[in-house]
Amino acid sequence: MEKLPRVVVVGAGFAGLACARALKRAPVQVTVIDRRNHHLFQPLLYQVATGGLNPADIAAPTRSILRRQRNAEVLLADARAVDVAARQLRLDDGSQVAYDHLVIATGATHAYFGHPEWAAVAPGLKTVEDALEIRRRILVAFERAERELDPRRQRDWLTFVVVGGGPTGVELAGAVAEIARHTLASEFRRIDPDRARVILLQAGERVLPSYSSVLSRSALRQLERLGVYVHTGVRVTAIDEEGVSIGRERVQARTVLWAAGVAASPLAATLGAPLDGAGRVLVTPALTIPGHEEVFVIGDVAAVSREDGTVVPGVAPAAVQAGRHAARTIVRGLRGQPALAFRYLDKGSMATIGRAAAVAEHRGWRFSGPVAWLAWLLVHVLFLVSYRSRFAVLAQWAYHYATYDRAARLITATAASPTGGAVAPSSPPIGLPQSP
Amino acid sequence: MEKLPRVVVVGAGFAGLACARALKRAPVQVTVIDRRNHHLFQPLLYQVATGGLNPADIAAPTRSILRRQRNAEVLLADARAVDVAARQLRLDDGSQVAYDHLVIATGATHAYFGHPEWAAVAPGLKTVEDALEIRRRILVAFERAERELDPRRQRDWLTFVVVGGGPTGVELAGAVAEIARHTLASEFRRIDPDRARVILLQAGERVLPSYSSVLSRSALRQLERLGVYVHTGVRVTAIDEEGVSIGRERVQARTVLWAAGVAASPLAATLGAPLDGAGRVLVTPALTIPGHEEVFVIGDVAAVSREDGTVVPGVAPAAVQAGRHAARTIVRGLRGQPALAFRYLDKGSMATIGRAAAVAEHRGWRFSGPVAWLAWLLVHVLFLVSYRSRFAVLAQWAYHYATYDRAARLITATAASPTGGAVAPSSPPIGLPQSP
Repeated sequence: MEKLPRVVVVGAGFAGLACARALKRAPVQVTVIDRRNHHLFQPLLYQVATGGLNPADIAAPTRSILRRQRNAEVLLADARAVDVAARQLRLDDGSQVAYDHLVIATGATHAYFGHPEWAAVAPGLKTVEDALEIRRRILVAFERAERELDPRRQRDWLTFVVVGGGPTGVELAGAVAEIARHTLASEFRRIDPDRARVILLQAGERVLPSYSSVLSRSALRQLERLGVYVHTGVRVTAIDEEGVSIGRERVQARTVLWAAGVAASPLAATLGAPLDGAGRVLVTPALTIPGHEEVFVIGDVAAVSREDGTVVPGVAPAAVQAGRHAARTIVRGLRGQPALAFRYLDKGSMATIGRAAAVAEHRGWRFSGPVAWLAWLLVHVLFLVSYRSRFAVLAQWAYHYATYDRAARLITATAASPTGGAVAPSSPPIGLPQSP
Repeated sequence: MEKLPRVVVVGAGFAGLACARALKRAPVQVTVIDRRNHHLFQPLLYQVATGGLNPADIAAPTRSILRRQRNAEVLLADARAVDVAARQLRLDDGSQVAYDHLVIATGATHAYFGHPEWAAVAPGLKTVEDALEIRRRILVAFERAERELDPRRQRDWLTFVVVGGGPTGVELAGAVAEIARHTLASEFRRIDPDRARVILLQAGERVLPSYSSVLSRSALRQLERLGVYVHTGVRVTAIDEEGVSIGRERVQARTVLWAAGVAASPLAATLGAPLDGAGRVLVTPALTIPGHEEVFVIGDVAAVSREDGTVVPGVAPAAVQAGRHAARTIVRGLRGQPALAFRYLDKGSMATIGRAAAVAEHRGWRFSGPVAWLAWLLVHVLFLVSYRSRFAVLAQWAYHYATYDRAARLITATAASPTGGAVAPSSPPIGLPQSP
């Protein structure tokens, strides 16, 4: 084993994990490094944020996924920098990991367009912790409204603003509207959750701008049917604890959720390769960095141009395809075969809006409403099942669909809330081993 | 509705919730106040702490449980003090809630025997956050061991100490041993999780001291079969990040879990009633405080003496019975009938040790091993189902039993771990509304 080439994969998201798994029978040693211990099925993260699913329903320990792949090991660590000349990766504890092939698949995080202070008042949705924090804020808002006697302040607690009209923003807005209209409908005595306002703010001219305009219009109609107010062509200029400013206009809201910008993981910048405006690495057609055929950059941290000048979208199927392509290229290289250019096979895209409300397009076919929603459900459950036998997810959804109930509506402490029990600040930080 | 007597129930645990539900058809207005939004099925909390169940599998929003009880409302608030003379309860935001009948059911928390500093290094198990913090520590310990090159330090990461040999300590120790022996067995490449040592420290002469000595011995044997080292008659004198001291002896361990002392909720002390050594209220046979027939104290925050001089144990069935007794007494009082003395009906007790390992006693009958474990499973699932249709729990257990897998093995940030995402310290604290 010792003399096999070492492939180091950084990031256990869709791209990294697909690459590692595709190397299962290759004559290599694979090391998967991630600062989280779990692979997260991000397309369903909004369901955790809105109390429909448990974190463990959409996340599985990376070790568990790779337990039967004997040529793979998993390391819980935060990769800090790459030395491409020395072919070494530096970890958080200062140690170096040598590689023969490196696959960077560290993804993206939220970007606040030069306003990092907005992070505190308008959480984004990338991690399990983000989802639990959003869930806590949504649920606490209804509780605060129930205790509030002043009608104006009560209304502020019952106003929810979602910034960003892409798939995540649309899903979040739809889910919050459903919670208010159905899930919580008969649980409060002093407020009527049905009076909650959900406002979706989109800078562009239409929601779901990456979809055809027919589907954008359909999504808009479906959102409005759920009671979501959609404002397009508006740019947020300020966010604070009391609401959002759009130029001189003001929306009073105690809950603001961020689904707008993303920025590539900072590890990308340490490669010394050219980056685009969002910090993504401008990769070669083989998904490597210029001058280093052994360094792959895949998934949301890469900007992949297609022959027609468009960019491969940051969706899970593209990440999986890129991961498999990198694995294939590594194996070809071991056999002395040249790298091939990556070709993205567009399998269509879909976004869900709410119960039986969604839009989907697949090779020119366009669907919306219940048919699109069923397709969405099917694709996502099948995808999930391929990672682990999560029949519990399907059961929970069936139950949720039948009863409008959301089982996972717990308000629990998060990193930011100091009253989380007897745990004092001296406990070791999450998952990130420190140097001894 | 306005003129009905108001019953304020503080605490939505077993005792408080049983009382509120038993008042469903009574001519009263019920207000349930809790600082958490959920009722927690505490007997299964150790399963969350060891990755077998999701928090939402064993917790349900109190609002959701009481949604159909039209004479009940739920308030998310922290009760701070009782003014028994004015019949008012003061909340965290300074507001007062007037009552005609008050039911204090605020439970207990951990006690560190005069060493509050141990809380940081040896978390206890009372809340969902506690369970997630313990889960995080156990999983991180194995990850750190995998990265550790020094064999001595590696051993320290693979040593788990549980302080306290009551039911919680026995359950935790058994579950950690099972994780190491089975769940993680094939997931690591550098360490052998099977080499992990689990040490149970018990101050008394035997584990499960509230059970008959026959069952204590059986529990000891079952623990040892799982690979747990049990030390009885040892008193912990110091705990720090590196281990535990027992007088001059020292056990090096990076993970120490606390399952020893409990102390009554501090609200009890504001009643002005006599307390026992653990801060519990010494209630009258009617479960009220002396001189105030309208103030009930039930569940773990009360010390209830029986005619034979023994004390009613702090178990869920006793709490439920006390809650129902308080409700019955309130209804009798409204009819002008005198209060009756509470009589605890002992339905037996059971503790689980691991897969197919448990002890149980019921009216003189004693069981251990698989039969006791099946009884334990049945009783707990039935109890859980009475609160909500949680068939997912049974499904997950069936899966877990068949595969030894534990689905909920996520390392996520907790209150103490600062790297939990983009959430800054200015976000509002968990669940506890502040004054505006």
